[in-house]
Amino acid sequence: MALEQGCVQVYTGNGKGKTTAALGLALRAVGRGLKVCVFQFIKGGGRYGEHLAAEKLAPLLTIIQTGRPGWVNTKDITDDRRTAQEALVQALELLTSGEFDLFICDEINGAVGFGLIDVEQVLDMISRKPEKTELVLTGRNAHERVIEAADLVTEMREIKHYYKAGIAARTGIEM
Amino acid sequence: MALEQGCVQVYTGNGKGKTTAALGLALRAVGRGLKVCVFQFIKGGGRYGEHLAAEKLAPLLTIIQTGRPGWVNTKDITDDRRTAQEALVQALELLTSGEFDLFICDEINGAVGFGLIDVEQVLDMISRKPEKTELVLTGRNAHERVIEAADLVTEMREIKHYYKAGIAARTGIEM
Repeated sequence: MALEQGCVQVYTGNGKGKTTAALGLALRAVGRGLKVCVFQFIKGGGRYGEHLAAEKLAPLLTIIQTGRPGWVNTKDITDDRRTAQEALVQALELLTSGEFDLFICDEINGAVGFGLIDVEQVLDMISRKPEKTELVLTGRNAHERVIEAADLVTEMREIKHYYKAGIAARTGIEM
Repeated sequence: MALEQGCVQVYTGNGKGKTTAALGLALRAVGRGLKVCVFQFIKGGGRYGEHLAAEKLAPLLTIIQTGRPGWVNTKDITDDRRTAQEALVQALELLTSGEFDLFICDEINGAVGFGLIDVEQVLDMISRKPEKTELVLTGRNAHERVIEAADLVTEMREIKHYYKAGIAARTGIEM
């Protein structure tokens, strides 16, 4: 099957659940036989639970990780920007191929926030989305022009987080 | 593997992404070999994409639907309350069996909001959670006592929703 109409969804905010919601969308879509690509920006740091699960849902679910290991070097973004720009070219190729019913650009809002990708490039991506492809953009601090261009926007607000109680990221839950 | 420590997470608010985030948690956990139960309250209405996908991730992922077909009869909750109370007994049995590493009570907050389950019953459930089981509670209008008892709370806020632009729920995305 294919979607009759593809929309643009944004998950932003400082709360837990943005990438996780995108993964949930992927799971539901795969259940319906849709083809899904989760394209991750600034996430080069190792394989998480979702990458292991993706193998069980292949060939419908593909997860592509890009970014350098470790976090963005905010003091000098040169290398991170080059990596993100190369990733963007790859993402655009995959998106515009029309091969995927659901295309998730995970952490692309963060990449814009760090100056690794320009907001105009995200708007260009949105404008080039195939009509029947659902495009999902995640990450904190989504740019107001991206919010304007989107059909659905949810802000995940942190009301309470256990990091503050000293609980670190746990394998199987956060990664 | 098993979690070293299980927490209580709440996803609430009027925005899209609560159940979806819980499904994403399930996907990640399954990738790590954790055993997951998604127990759905007031959701008796047919099989969605997540139910079809669950078959591909069995036996690690189990999704149980409870509730009557159609939406809650808010004019007379007698039947819905009986159904929800029976479901709660089943959920408690499964949760306290310790068989699951991640136990998701989907829409339980909504069930409390409709008066189908009492908030004291949810607090009792939280108190009886096995130490190493992660318990996730979703649904709008989470009760303040549930928020108080939780370790992590995220509010999904609707900034923009395409329902308002006349786009109905789509197979593969919302269901």
